[in-house]
Amino acid sequence: MIIKANNPALTSWIDVEKNSDFPIQNLPFGIYSDSINQHRVCSAIGNYVIDLYELADRGYFKTLTLNKELFNRPYLNDLIALGKSATRALRERLSDLLESTNQELQGDKKTFDAIFKPQSSVQLMLPVKVGDYTDFYSSIDHATNIGTMIRDPKNALMPNWKYIPVGYHGRASSIMVSGSNFHRPKGQMKPADAEVPTFGPCKLLDFELETGYIIGKSSSPGQSISTEQADDYIFGMVLFNDWSARDIQTWEYVPLGPFLSKNFASTVSPWVVTLDALEPFRTEGYVQEPKVFPYLEYKGNKNVDIKLEVAIQPENGEETIVCRSNYKYMYWTMEQQLAHHTVNGCNVNVGDLMGSGTISGPDVSEYGSMMELSWKGTKPIKLKDGSERKFINDNDTVILRGYCKNNEVRIGFGECKAKLLPAL
Amino acid sequence: MIIKANNPALTSWIDVEKNSDFPIQNLPFGIYSDSINQHRVCSAIGNYVIDLYELADRGYFKTLTLNKELFNRPYLNDLIALGKSATRALRERLSDLLESTNQELQGDKKTFDAIFKPQSSVQLMLPVKVGDYTDFYSSIDHATNIGTMIRDPKNALMPNWKYIPVGYHGRASSIMVSGSNFHRPKGQMKPADAEVPTFGPCKLLDFELETGYIIGKSSSPGQSISTEQADDYIFGMVLFNDWSARDIQTWEYVPLGPFLSKNFASTVSPWVVTLDALEPFRTEGYVQEPKVFPYLEYKGNKNVDIKLEVAIQPENGEETIVCRSNYKYMYWTMEQQLAHHTVNGCNVNVGDLMGSGTISGPDVSEYGSMMELSWKGTKPIKLKDGSERKFINDNDTVILRGYCKNNEVRIGFGECKAKLLPAL
Repeated sequence: MIIKANNPALTSWIDVEKNSDFPIQNLPFGIYSDSINQHRVCSAIGNYVIDLYELADRGYFKTLTLNKELFNRPYLNDLIALGKSATRALRERLSDLLESTNQELQGDKKTFDAIFKPQSSVQLMLPVKVGDYTDFYSSIDHATNIGTMIRDPKNALMPNWKYIPVGYHGRASSIMVSGSNFHRPKGQMKPADAEVPTFGPCKLLDFELETGYIIGKSSSPGQSISTEQADDYIFGMVLFNDWSARDIQTWEYVPLGPFLSKNFASTVSPWVVTLDALEPFRTEGYVQEPKVFPYLEYKGNKNVDIKLEVAIQPENGEETIVCRSNYKYMYWTMEQQLAHHTVNGCNVNVGDLMGSGTISGPDVSEYGSMMELSWKGTKPIKLKDGSERKFINDNDTVILRGYCKNNEVRIGFGECKAKLLPAL
Repeated sequence: MIIKANNPALTSWIDVEKNSDFPIQNLPFGIYSDSINQHRVCSAIGNYVIDLYELADRGYFKTLTLNKELFNRPYLNDLIALGKSATRALRERLSDLLESTNQELQGDKKTFDAIFKPQSSVQLMLPVKVGDYTDFYSSIDHATNIGTMIRDPKNALMPNWKYIPVGYHGRASSIMVSGSNFHRPKGQMKPADAEVPTFGPCKLLDFELETGYIIGKSSSPGQSISTEQADDYIFGMVLFNDWSARDIQTWEYVPLGPFLSKNFASTVSPWVVTLDALEPFRTEGYVQEPKVFPYLEYKGNKNVDIKLEVAIQPENGEETIVCRSNYKYMYWTMEQQLAHHTVNGCNVNVGDLMGSGTISGPDVSEYGSMMELSWKGTKPIKLKDGSERKFINDNDTVILRGYCKNNEVRIGFGECKAKLLPAL
């Protein structure tokens, strides 16, 4: 299928800087609020957000027969529930309106100002109402690193790891949009050499560099989604920081998995980049050996070449990039994750979020968590200001970034950041 | 605080059988639909559901200043979000209207028929929209049984078990109301003596006898709810069957906990019995040794004496009660669970469901799962029709029931049942 809006030759009459995350080939979806409007569906180009309600209200989407009230909602759920054919047509129409030769919106300053607003002048909101949130554990380098550190270097991967895309259910209520700061969590911890646990602010607060994908089509209880059908159920991707309290996790997670060590906060990027926009950056998947069960087999290039980075910015200081990784390192693809999640008949709903799990690459500079970067705290990371980090300090801001880039186009996710405030 | 509606001396002008789950002292909340009305908030007395919208529409709640549209909703969330003082006043007003000497509703057959409908003539719906669902693991007899079977009889409980109310996040999308049948899930399993896993319909499908409580008041990110505050955040209780595929669970659950083994279906009772109605049945909690951390300490009687039972009914056959347990056996109370869940600042929302975990008692007849009753399949259970069960067979219906009873009053939950259909 040819998606016109992906054409790398397209340019816009709106000025877009060369390294912008938001060229005309991106057109992600989000929600913004400002002093005039509360909760409008928007897209982005260059440094602007595009108010889609204002466009709909002025009749620019009349060929799409969309109810304009769909753009006047606190979340994207109702819009993306229309399905891929509708959201794809919307993105194509948006692309037409913004394309250099199109005159429909050019020239009228008053209309322009109502529709296009500098990103810096608005507040970007949580883009979707997340019903259920699942987190996978699908990076082989991450799973190997963790297994090596806390179990046995010779048997770093659990026996099930290459057979099933291991995952667990997370907490949806505490997923916050980029820019929402939160307090260091308190909880129970038990140092390895202690007889009994202690209670207090966690000491080993970590980020996890992840992406997530947003479900765009609901399935019914009992229904299984095949790897082939999966892309029709995936609306788009986000950046995701699955904050983790390592010391709370160690004490609590056997036998039922992470709980309070993860559910105090997760940070999601405000922009959902459509799977359509990422299509040109699909790349070969990991060679899977042993062979997977038939329901996990898939055809074609299903990984995505998304360059990822993590920066730590101390209070009033300069940021230091501590990790550069890539989504293409994933062992299990999104399509395999969704096929596995539903093979037992578990139903998914529009707005559900599926996290990738920490995305580490093979090189030490590509490790997606402080746990790995500092190798369990044994090798502190040096920041530009000369200070060292084993884990995250109070008042540090952690920033995730991601973008796809080839010789012609750069498609980005914007930032996914939050500051860790001291414990209450 | 004295709750008038709990007065055991009250009788109603509506006939209530002696062993009914729904005397005037109960007045639970639910949602019903029938051929006339879709999704109305209701209560129950004797064999009737009470349409609260019809009462509101006729002005019977005018002293409560409630918007009648609150009773014309698909879920209870908006009503219970009004808070305990509002829902308590509503239950008290209902109690007044139904009390023997009250003449407001007596006599007018046409009005009666619009408001009171035989439970058998309506469909009871999922009572709340569940945002997040958490399942605990708080029965010491259950945790001891499982630890004895799959680990070490001498160290049956994990080291963390008596320090933290262990819990994990479950899947909200597949929570179904009583009466919703579902198919045996498929998945990966690895028999202990096999080299590699197999794929197919699960063989060891189990029920888990649980209760759940519904959050009635939202908290903010960063906020911790104390054990003392907890009851104000708990609207009421339900019966809950946390269906489990034991063989899928064994293969998948290390290290991140249960996933596909649980998320295909959970069954919840249609009636939410208010915490107010259960207050007379509060009883002493488990003696906790070692002493718990201060944030888990509590005062007063916080367990509840709820008699529980599980029946298995083969297709077209007679049911056999296979387990009689009691909620009072819980080691960790609801208040402790909620204090723990939020001690790290995790926020809860109205409609969230917190499952108890399997509720087993000390006697073998009180074990709350087939895993325990048949001791991992080694001791089959005999049913009345002469057949045997190690786990649940295709087309078996599993029925959970629960009620509180003292010398004066019996408060019940109705049934929580579902039939296991063959794998698709």
